[in-house]
Amino acid sequence: MTERRYDPTRGEWVTFATHRQNRTFLPPADQCPLCPTTPGGPPTEIPAASYDLVTFDNRFPSFTADPPEPSVAGDALTPVAPAVGRAEVVVFTGDHDATLTELPVARLRSLVDVWADRTTVLGRRPEIGYVFPFENKGEEIGVTLNHPHGQIYGYPDIPPIPAQEIAAARRYRAEHGSCVWCDLVIREETSERLVVCGDAFAAYVPFWARFPYQVYISARRHAPALPSLTAPERDDLAHVLKRVLVAYDGLFGFSMPYVMAVHQEPATGGHGDLTHLHLELSPPYRTATKRKYLAGSELAAGAYVTDLPPEGTAAALREALSRERADPGEAAA
Amino acid sequence: MTERRYDPTRGEWVTFATHRQNRTFLPPADQCPLCPTTPGGPPTEIPAASYDLVTFDNRFPSFTADPPEPSVAGDALTPVAPAVGRAEVVVFTGDHDATLTELPVARLRSLVDVWADRTTVLGRRPEIGYVFPFENKGEEIGVTLNHPHGQIYGYPDIPPIPAQEIAAARRYRAEHGSCVWCDLVIREETSERLVVCGDAFAAYVPFWARFPYQVYISARRHAPALPSLTAPERDDLAHVLKRVLVAYDGLFGFSMPYVMAVHQEPATGGHGDLTHLHLELSPPYRTATKRKYLAGSELAAGAYVTDLPPEGTAAALREALSRERADPGEAAA
Repeated sequence: MTERRYDPTRGEWVTFATHRQNRTFLPPADQCPLCPTTPGGPPTEIPAASYDLVTFDNRFPSFTADPPEPSVAGDALTPVAPAVGRAEVVVFTGDHDATLTELPVARLRSLVDVWADRTTVLGRRPEIGYVFPFENKGEEIGVTLNHPHGQIYGYPDIPPIPAQEIAAARRYRAEHGSCVWCDLVIREETSERLVVCGDAFAAYVPFWARFPYQVYISARRHAPALPSLTAPERDDLAHVLKRVLVAYDGLFGFSMPYVMAVHQEPATGGHGDLTHLHLELSPPYRTATKRKYLAGSELAAGAYVTDLPPEGTAAALREALSRERADPGEAAA
Repeated sequence: MTERRYDPTRGEWVTFATHRQNRTFLPPADQCPLCPTTPGGPPTEIPAASYDLVTFDNRFPSFTADPPEPSVAGDALTPVAPAVGRAEVVVFTGDHDATLTELPVARLRSLVDVWADRTTVLGRRPEIGYVFPFENKGEEIGVTLNHPHGQIYGYPDIPPIPAQEIAAARRYRAEHGSCVWCDLVIREETSERLVVCGDAFAAYVPFWARFPYQVYISARRHAPALPSLTAPERDDLAHVLKRVLVAYDGLFGFSMPYVMAVHQEPATGGHGDLTHLHLELSPPYRTATKRKYLAGSELAAGAYVTDLPPEGTAAALREALSRERADPGEAAA
């Protein structure tokens, strides 16, 4: 069963991919399907003895180019649709034990290119409405394969949160005559919530951070999507992302789990004035030992309640980064 | 710092309550602040030697009747507001080791009355826009006190998900001329997704379940809110809720964690045709040993992907309930 079912009480689609229930679950390192295939070893999903970045279709996809017919008939109350779209895996390195944070900036720069290229290629397909590169990092986030990797979803429509952002940007533009993200980044570049400011991208803790150490990495100019970035802008995004990841790992002294997501213009285009490229990074910790949980208020009312002031968490991230900068080992990365 | 900050990129408020960072965290049973105060023992938050249901203001509130001035000034880009409202605790029993599931139906019936009474009392206050009874159960959900208890939030506005439900119900009514929840419950009463059907309430796995074993308990008639329920309807809600909780505990053989939330008419009234009383129960497990995690697609795109068919999970819950019914011990509860 792979299909989409419509929730008429919220006006949202939910996707079912029941084959995912049996997906590979935290295999031992010597059975990792994302490692290089070694002579004499078992074949992995990547038939190469070594590689840098690799992208391929997810073996347990939520969306596919050619989905099966839905298991049930929809009706006017609860429509049903095939789970058409794409689910790709992006493996960051052949090194099973590395993390994105530890990879050189050049690799992050290549990742930006992969994201941009896949945005273009997938976005050209008529069945895809939105290209969404993301990384779920850490078992706390529910990762089922520890090998460093991200994912790219090609949704058949604009998913709820990006659609909500577009609607809010439209209201803001009607009222203020400008892009809300442009106005925000201009303010945050010099605010106490700034974490890192590069030439083309600024990383800041949002004024309304839903997770205590949440960081947004926003284009400083009004760039709607990854493919529109120039080469120097891509260099800078890789640089700023690296610094944010280093700050995260320095914060509590362990490799920080997070959700990282790219928000950009829908594949259907036509929203260039209402979308402003940014990355959202959301780690699930509020102290080194205490997690930030989403519970009744967040999950059932949509009302986030947070325990730490964004100005304080931004200062802690800057402090963590300054400690790392003092470490000559990191400077070589 | 206790305040609300507006996110203009999504059109939502986020609440900050930084004193909550130091709230009591999983104290040992002999230091539980929700236990009865015993002679010679330390005083707890409840100055009584025994009690059934108790409700009082949360010592670490997200919203209060008299919040402090915000720590920062808002502006047109990011407004700021006091975190006015109410956060109450509802302790279900003096027995530290019980769960709501194990309490007699009569206690659940009293809980329905408490929820309804607090809905009326808090809803009359001009600063409260929405009364939201809920329970976060289990350390997997982030519970910081194990003593069985729920909470009631009085939000100053209609929070995002109930507001989204009202907007969707308005669209549905404009198109179909009826209440979407009424149309749903009529269908689900005889569907393969039904778990329990009482005289006044029906419990079913929603067609689009965002969590594998999610259950909605919906009024069968168009009752907009708890206070409008008759005494027999309250009896039936307690009965149906008890059966759902028993099914959950029987499913995997352990006390099932969950978020339980009541969705009802806003305190401001005037939405009676667009709100239909229902409870949403969302457990975080997809098997006895595997959790359902929310990650990139859900948290950053708002697009839920689920691994199990609602028809199958409803059958499993009915099966768990039939096993429990065969147990004469449970029948006495």
